[in-house]
Amino acid sequence: MPRFEPKNPDYRAVATAMFEQQRAMKTLGISIARLEPGEVDLAMDYSADLTQQHGFIHAGIITAALDNACGVAAFTLMPPGAGILTVEFKTNLLAPARGERFAFRASVVKPGRTMTVCEGRAYAADDGKETLIATMTGTLMALTSREGASPEKGVRRSLIG
Amino acid sequence: MPRFEPKNPDYRAVATAMFEQQRAMKTLGISIARLEPGEVDLAMDYSADLTQQHGFIHAGIITAALDNACGVAAFTLMPPGAGILTVEFKTNLLAPARGERFAFRASVVKPGRTMTVCEGRAYAADDGKETLIATMTGTLMALTSREGASPEKGVRRSLIG
Amino acid sequence: MPRFEPKNPDYRAVATAMFEQQRAMKTLGISIARLEPGEVDLAMDYSADLTQQHGFIHAGIITAALDNACGVAAFTLMPPGAGILTVEFKTNLLAPARGERFAFRASVVKPGRTMTVCEGRAYAADDGKETLIATMTGTLMALTSREGASPEKGVRRSLIG
Amino acid sequence: MPRFEPKNPDYRAVATAMFEQQRAMKTLGISIARLEPGEVDLAMDYSADLTQQHGFIHAGIITAALDNACGVAAFTLMPPGAGILTVEFKTNLLAPARGERFAFRASVVKPGRTMTVCEGRAYAADDGKETLIATMTGTLMALTSREGASPEKGVRRSLIG
Repeated sequence: MPRFEPKNPDYRAVATAMFEQQRAMKTLGISIARLEPGEVDLAMDYSADLTQQHGFIHAGIITAALDNACGVAAFTLMPPGAGILTVEFKTNLLAPARGERFAFRASVVKPGRTMTVCEGRAYAADDGKETLIATMTGTLMALTSREGASPEKGVRRSLIG
Repeated sequence: MPRFEPKNPDYRAVATAMFEQQRAMKTLGISIARLEPGEVDLAMDYSADLTQQHGFIHAGIITAALDNACGVAAFTLMPPGAGILTVEFKTNLLAPARGERFAFRASVVKPGRTMTVCEGRAYAADDGKETLIATMTGTLMALTSREGASPEKGVRRSLIG
Repeated sequence: MPRFEPKNPDYRAVATAMFEQQRAMKTLGISIARLEPGEVDLAMDYSADLTQQHGFIHAGIITAALDNACGVAAFTLMPPGAGILTVEFKTNLLAPARGERFAFRASVVKPGRTMTVCEGRAYAADDGKETLIATMTGTLMALTSREGASPEKGVRRSLIG
Repeated sequence: MPRFEPKNPDYRAVATAMFEQQRAMKTLGISIARLEPGEVDLAMDYSADLTQQHGFIHAGIITAALDNACGVAAFTLMPPGAGILTVEFKTNLLAPARGERFAFRASVVKPGRTMTVCEGRAYAADDGKETLIATMTGTLMALTSREGASPEKGVRRSLIG
């Protein structure tokens, strides 16, 4: 049973569309593996193009995926017509991002009318074993029509204004 | 006059080499614009391949660049033979990452034998105007031979162990 | 010349009153040393009652003071009638909080209609020498009448809802 | 069954002693409610002396308790003779700290030889109902004799050096 009741009956289509509009996700090879109200898993294969100096996936790439997992999870609980922005996030790197495949699991800790707080965890699958490699706590903000003529306009005017 | 005295006379070559070994930086089109002891500027052009759903650069990409700016800045002050790892960072997104070109400026706040704390700021240059779009505070860790037979081995064993 | 123009001509009286309503500040012996639009310095004397196991001031006390410095700095730029809440903050501890007297200096990095981001730095004065001991980045939220019948009511209903 | 195996058979006595040496905890009225390897619950009663401008417990006090919960949880897994320091933490405030009694629950996410990452959650008990009011992610550092002649000396020399 999902922990949260979505306000938007179309949450799945809307959240998936928002994800797919992000060209960065395609560039990084990140896809949605599971999507429930307030919970999202993303997946990414290893790519040498995304590595740091030791051959592991770069912490910034791990963070981009975690941020998106948090954003999509928060977005599933927002009302129809809302836009979404990341206010801030914090990542702890726990182990090298070494593996063939990576999973990014986010869930909403506290949904709110304006602000939603999410937590995410990144795992590396290496040789059949899964290791926790990073955690994120993130704050996401809903942009609704009260914030301007349209969420889009609100976004364009100012991220946190 | 630089604020910090590097322990490694070769800091410039070593930090540049570390940066260039990161294939993710090449994939994202990020380069070193300035490098001094404890201070680094990175630069990145706009690319539609790195955008989120509103056409701005994805917060995760901005974070990847800020993390690297902090890492290189910290690395310039580490002793010869050291490796470096990011322990954690925190990013606040202040304005949409809209622009033709982006600058990522990091400086060391507190260098330490084991841990170094850095701050970074990301700016978007749009139509001749520069806007602060994000801040980062990050903690970096030096891996020296005391941490294992070699920094490389220390890295491979465990990031924070 | 101050960097920011306050929206509330009474910002000084209002921010000071908000600070003085916080009984925790009196308990901890923290006072306002300087207050300008978007910038605040707080001061605290050493007290053995606030120490951790090594006799230094507890990191949580340092954080309470930094949080308040950030909150008051943000509050000086908010419109008349607004309430304020802390959304989140992040503290890095850089050196032991050892000294006779402590200063907490916060300034607004980005003021916004809803959200304001501040940075704070804590210094210990010990034997005439001042040492940077901690940094904070914090996100503060304005509660205005749009958020409910009154800021107070908004606060009571939900912090981030 | 505890998730972690302590390295110090005396972990309970040592962690309790470390907590009790912190005079700030006594001043704030915080006590240990439960202590297992890698897991700690602290408790605090409401006190008007610790409030902010709306009569709720100050976010900094909540943070001081969460920081200590994380620190004690991390400390239970450290080897005999180790000292401990907080490197950094991040707090999200989710709901007003309104209640008669507060609980602070921390658990180790990733223990390490040098660095340990913990997560904490703060709850307010109000009229028989428990509400999640804040989360923390914190990084703690072990100081062992390798860091200097004694942990104490290491602490006194520099927190993160």
